[in-house]
Amino acid sequence: MTRLTLALDAMGGDFGPCVTVPAALQALASNPVLNLLLVGDPAAITPLLAKVDSELLSRLDVVPAESVIASDARPSQAIRASRGTSMRIALELVKEGRAQACVSAGNTGALMGLAKLLIKPLEGIERPALVSVLPHQQRGKTVVLDLGANVDCDSTMLVQFAVMGSVMAEEVLALTNPRVALLNIGEEESKGLSTIRDAAAQLKEAPSINYIGYLEGNDLLTGKTDVMVCDGFVGNVTLKTVEGMVRMFLSLLKSPASDPTKKQKQSWWLKWLGRWLKTRLSKRFSHLNPDQYNGACLLGLRGTVIKSHGAANQKAFAVAIEQAMQAVRRQLPERIAARLQAVLPKSD
Amino acid sequence: MTRLTLALDAMGGDFGPCVTVPAALQALASNPVLNLLLVGDPAAITPLLAKVDSELLSRLDVVPAESVIASDARPSQAIRASRGTSMRIALELVKEGRAQACVSAGNTGALMGLAKLLIKPLEGIERPALVSVLPHQQRGKTVVLDLGANVDCDSTMLVQFAVMGSVMAEEVLALTNPRVALLNIGEEESKGLSTIRDAAAQLKEAPSINYIGYLEGNDLLTGKTDVMVCDGFVGNVTLKTVEGMVRMFLSLLKSPASDPTKKQKQSWWLKWLGRWLKTRLSKRFSHLNPDQYNGACLLGLRGTVIKSHGAANQKAFAVAIEQAMQAVRRQLPERIAARLQAVLPKSD
Repeated sequence: MTRLTLALDAMGGDFGPCVTVPAALQALASNPVLNLLLVGDPAAITPLLAKVDSELLSRLDVVPAESVIASDARPSQAIRASRGTSMRIALELVKEGRAQACVSAGNTGALMGLAKLLIKPLEGIERPALVSVLPHQQRGKTVVLDLGANVDCDSTMLVQFAVMGSVMAEEVLALTNPRVALLNIGEEESKGLSTIRDAAAQLKEAPSINYIGYLEGNDLLTGKTDVMVCDGFVGNVTLKTVEGMVRMFLSLLKSPASDPTKKQKQSWWLKWLGRWLKTRLSKRFSHLNPDQYNGACLLGLRGTVIKSHGAANQKAFAVAIEQAMQAVRRQLPERIAARLQAVLPKSD
Repeated sequence: MTRLTLALDAMGGDFGPCVTVPAALQALASNPVLNLLLVGDPAAITPLLAKVDSELLSRLDVVPAESVIASDARPSQAIRASRGTSMRIALELVKEGRAQACVSAGNTGALMGLAKLLIKPLEGIERPALVSVLPHQQRGKTVVLDLGANVDCDSTMLVQFAVMGSVMAEEVLALTNPRVALLNIGEEESKGLSTIRDAAAQLKEAPSINYIGYLEGNDLLTGKTDVMVCDGFVGNVTLKTVEGMVRMFLSLLKSPASDPTKKQKQSWWLKWLGRWLKTRLSKRFSHLNPDQYNGACLLGLRGTVIKSHGAANQKAFAVAIEQAMQAVRRQLPERIAARLQAVLPKSD
């Protein structure tokens, strides 16, 4: 397989290098063709590389960056003052062709703005969207977008998200004529916000999109659609609600079944069997665990940019690196650009 | 206990009298002080009462209504043409003092509009909100609003929801100084939509509200707040996502653990024990089952109106009737009106 180089914003996210560096080493160890450029403060990164195997180190370079974009910074201000930040330098490495993709767990708004500025949107795309492929109940997958890149969306943006999501479902999930739905508060035509109703009217007229109508929140993970489209605010709240629910269920499964204040006599074999069964059940839910599908792709750009959850742990950040590798190998931006030519209405 | 009369829109919801009539009979059987006015088409309702005990029948009256508001009707049109519909007549019974509350599983927008028109909002309230009390992870409860009465909300409406939610948490959950949060896509001040940021600025200045800041979707059920405020679109999508997740987990728990195509030898006692443990786990999750907390209260009116889920089954619709009884007994509208006087900024 051909070599592959990714740029990581090592300083982004809630834990910075403490998470990104071990995750980078984990990814290097499991992918022999991978090279990584760790962008950030060498004084924070280098100590974490002290005892690392020399073969791994040979595939890793630290690219110095003097500052970091705070996760609570206003995107517009952050972008103006972004020169020399780890996020901007990581994106510049992609722009200059030194890296094939960039991964960051930093400020979403700033990442979106800087990526648009440096890597540029594909022709015909107004605003890139954050997209993720979520597992559904029937063990298939659903492409969901936008997950938070655009808090305010008009109908044109929603239609473009539908087109990009549809192409993504074809390319990544290998589906023919994927079903596309708009997330709404009812399945009836009259329901919801006017932007959604306008987008529905446009999608009905789009011959290349298999638009199936509105779906509600409870259908997000039932597999009734291959692509679910919503604005970034609703998408983000919904995704985080799903994550919160999964974590709650996993913790309820693992917690003791009875009130700990009440002493109950239980034979050792019953306890052991209970634990064994719970472990088996936890495994059945593990494909829904948010850590397993961390890393949303900023779709609609001329290059690959992956946004990791800010609170990602080492395992989850390593999954985001894996996502970036897959997106590069699948040549997602190139394929989407090619399909968009055919699908999007001509601007003239 | 004093007698209590409720008006039921017997024709509303996905299943109409097939669900509402058996639920009504169930509620009458378990509440000897309850009287019900079933509003709808006698030809559809009466056959369902054929074999019913005469004592129950003595506490039930059928109030004829010649038409129904369709669940997919545009609210504005539906309201204009609402004369003689089961929903409108049920609300009129409350207005005339013949019933103390109304329960409907019909068109949310129409119910909201008609309730505003007939029962009138409390002084100082621009728009009533749909509110529900959801169970959280720590076995407490969270007041969540708006769940779909207002798809588009400005900051003033969000602040009023916060005030009403706070009063509801005091009255229903018996909390002192309940914590109030705004649902947003990040906890940082700069995040989210401008309406939410404006509402946050106003809530920080409100001395009688214990405003704790933004929370994200994953904190909806963690118990970090007693009141969660959002606009009706986001609230509805989120609530339905939660419901979908709970149903999915409950069905995964109950489904066979192994691939049914593969024949596996398992001893009878292992199978039996597996079933026993799953039943116990299902019970632990049952407090999260959407059927257990069906019925959102339309808060901010001079009377009590309960909106049931359109897809509610008999059990769930009976829970909505129960909610109406509790709201009447707690004198929610009166108490909220009294507290609003003190809490809301004076309009002059």
